[in-house]
Amino acid sequence: MAQKPTLPKGTRDFGPKQMLRRNYILDTIKSVFKKYGFMPIETPAMENLSTLTGKYGDEGDQLLFRILNSGDFLSKASEEDLQSGSAILRSKISEKGLKYDLTVPFARYVVANQHEVTFPFKRYQIQPVWRADRPQKGRYREFYQCDADVIGTNSLICEAELMVMVHEIFGALKFSEYKIALSSRKILEGIAEIMNATPQFAQLVVILDKLDKIGEEKVLEELEKIGLNSNALSTLKSLLHFQGDNDSKLAQLKSAFVSSQIGLEGIKDIEEVLDHADSLGLVDHNLEFDLTLARGLSYYTGVIYEVKPTSISMGTIAAGGRYDNLTEVFGLSGVSGVGISFGIDRIYDTLNELDLFATDQLETTQVLLTNFDDDAQKHALNILFKLRANDISSEIYPDHSKLKKQLNYADKKQIPYVVLIGSQEIEAGRYTLKNMEKGSQQELSVDELINFLKDKA
Amino acid sequence: MAQKPTLPKGTRDFGPKQMLRRNYILDTIKSVFKKYGFMPIETPAMENLSTLTGKYGDEGDQLLFRILNSGDFLSKASEEDLQSGSAILRSKISEKGLKYDLTVPFARYVVANQHEVTFPFKRYQIQPVWRADRPQKGRYREFYQCDADVIGTNSLICEAELMVMVHEIFGALKFSEYKIALSSRKILEGIAEIMNATPQFAQLVVILDKLDKIGEEKVLEELEKIGLNSNALSTLKSLLHFQGDNDSKLAQLKSAFVSSQIGLEGIKDIEEVLDHADSLGLVDHNLEFDLTLARGLSYYTGVIYEVKPTSISMGTIAAGGRYDNLTEVFGLSGVSGVGISFGIDRIYDTLNELDLFATDQLETTQVLLTNFDDDAQKHALNILFKLRANDISSEIYPDHSKLKKQLNYADKKQIPYVVLIGSQEIEAGRYTLKNMEKGSQQELSVDELINFLKDKA
Repeated sequence: MAQKPTLPKGTRDFGPKQMLRRNYILDTIKSVFKKYGFMPIETPAMENLSTLTGKYGDEGDQLLFRILNSGDFLSKASEEDLQSGSAILRSKISEKGLKYDLTVPFARYVVANQHEVTFPFKRYQIQPVWRADRPQKGRYREFYQCDADVIGTNSLICEAELMVMVHEIFGALKFSEYKIALSSRKILEGIAEIMNATPQFAQLVVILDKLDKIGEEKVLEELEKIGLNSNALSTLKSLLHFQGDNDSKLAQLKSAFVSSQIGLEGIKDIEEVLDHADSLGLVDHNLEFDLTLARGLSYYTGVIYEVKPTSISMGTIAAGGRYDNLTEVFGLSGVSGVGISFGIDRIYDTLNELDLFATDQLETTQVLLTNFDDDAQKHALNILFKLRANDISSEIYPDHSKLKKQLNYADKKQIPYVVLIGSQEIEAGRYTLKNMEKGSQQELSVDELINFLKDKA
Repeated sequence: MAQKPTLPKGTRDFGPKQMLRRNYILDTIKSVFKKYGFMPIETPAMENLSTLTGKYGDEGDQLLFRILNSGDFLSKASEEDLQSGSAILRSKISEKGLKYDLTVPFARYVVANQHEVTFPFKRYQIQPVWRADRPQKGRYREFYQCDADVIGTNSLICEAELMVMVHEIFGALKFSEYKIALSSRKILEGIAEIMNATPQFAQLVVILDKLDKIGEEKVLEELEKIGLNSNALSTLKSLLHFQGDNDSKLAQLKSAFVSSQIGLEGIKDIEEVLDHADSLGLVDHNLEFDLTLARGLSYYTGVIYEVKPTSISMGTIAAGGRYDNLTEVFGLSGVSGVGISFGIDRIYDTLNELDLFATDQLETTQVLLTNFDDDAQKHALNILFKLRANDISSEIYPDHSKLKKQLNYADKKQIPYVVLIGSQEIEAGRYTLKNMEKGSQQELSVDELINFLKDKA
């Protein structure tokens, strides 16, 4: 009985067409990263669990894929461990896990290589990560992250450059219908301060984060439930109703923040980022100051941002922020960093939905040589050699098959030209070149063939 | 107490310099694969264990990394399972594993996508695989494989093309000191037949495989131990002493194989591959017929080959062969395939040892703009914008630091030029461009700067 060729749920194969489109996105992003001075690194799929656990909250710990120790994995587990349930036994029989994001392994890398790395260190990293999440549309258990970070400087130029990079990357992908929401953790802290809600800061962030989904009214209700009084709520309400452009909103918030040192710092940071972005030519910029922006992950300490398509409902396609203490847990403190992560799957879906993949021309050969019998085959191999020596990507149909089958192969593989090689052609030394799209044919010598195909390459 | 930033044993980080060198190798291989009509696919890191187990022998099964089921993994294990030891319990608490090679997932992919795939299907795949092997020099638990396979044809043109690809790839890497050992499983079967050792075929293959390491005498001793008589041994001995070039060795073997149908088929296959390779221009080819070539893996059924450096001791850097029944286990029979796998780590070590990495110029920016104070910074950001608008990869030092520190940054990051921007330069509208290698300086306007750097790009 044959085994079913199934995949674990939440994982995917990428065939040639998907690879082409993914590489188009990844190559575009990579070339911009390089242009801005980011250098590539890669870290292993597996990390020690001590590196991973405790970094993503309890929920994150639950979503780690753990690797069973090799060999007699029970040798380190006592009879008591065996009876103590999954949570305890787990720690006795697995020491490694699959990486959950690229940021924590990057922090580990920086600390491990702190004497070789040149700070400020600008690195990019494009690799899969794994999360034991419930799979659903657009959410996978194995997916690529594509991150750029600068570590070892407090300069807000970095934030501005990341915004400019977003602009350049999406510009190169011919995608313009997005906005970048921008704020700072410090502004959230300021809001909590002027609401007298500093003790409830964590809850406040979680509830504000839902504003888009549940609306203002429900947010205010939930905040009331966690004990905020009507003064606090009306303060927040007035902030939420700020109108106008970025400058105007920032000016209004500045007045509201007269008594909040941290809030004013947050505003100054945003103003500086906008100013730098302006110097860097980001005029028509899609940058919107959004004081309700929260970003879930707890390690952010400064400026935060989130990129979403505006014309379709897709969720966040890129996001990031500044973190101050990421390497501290590995023994290197006082190092500030800032980064951005591009969501490749959602960018793929966005371009697809907006029909922005310029072409689906597979990366295939330019020409197929037919193969009808041993004689013609030997002749074709010789022509193939000459084509390849001229750097023309080319292939021969490997079997003696009917013409229809060979043309069908070229058609499905999107090979634009087919050279027909039969006994007449061999005798005449002139071969029939068939244009697969137009159906037109012409007779060419080998040299003419080479020149023709070189021109088309 | 800080956590140690350590990695699981047998795994590695790749920093910018290693990435550069690895990408040089991988990009070279990829471009040749494409030129010959191979298309990329990717499969997930995780596969169901049912896909992986039983494909690599008992030893392979032991080396699979297994992933602990998520959540309450013990819920599927009975009290009896808990007491039955690692081997039994393992199957109750893990359903997925990390892929062990690219070939089995490829077979699974082909069967799952058999109605969309165009046969003959030429695919390449470059991804990490994982083996719980004992780590040692040159052997890792996570390493990249780089495979090209053609599936769905018996044509020996494919074998010849793979040999030509090896030649073109290593040629592009400026590496010529290697040889390709070539034989066929059918020839081994023929040898077993004329030795009257067909029942001992599996053992014979294992012992012959050690010829390089232990020498002829010990091989004959071991064969005697498994019950082969002196007639058999003297038959083998005469084969091992064949002298001359490929044609001469093949002719001698043909006489020895008069009574072995399968052996003669093997010879015919080799002759045909050599003939096709010749038609494809592989003249100075490093191809050596080696009748003792065995290749461990059991799924090979036809032509087999192995590439080794000749001037250094490095082991196999690429290898492969034809397999007839790989997709059968997943329910698709009658499909023959042939492939080659390049060992990226050993190719890396080989190029390194032979000093064949052309340059260690990091993929970095072309120019660094200095940053001394707020005024100069604003000015620099503006110049940076203009440089980037002209597609010149460039960056600004993000902090107001001393010149020495900024030059040191450029030096370590191998940035070839630094533009010094101080108050005098700003006033004059002419900036000092420093050539970091030569130490020379010149004064240029922004336009001149752009033209100069564009010319150098």
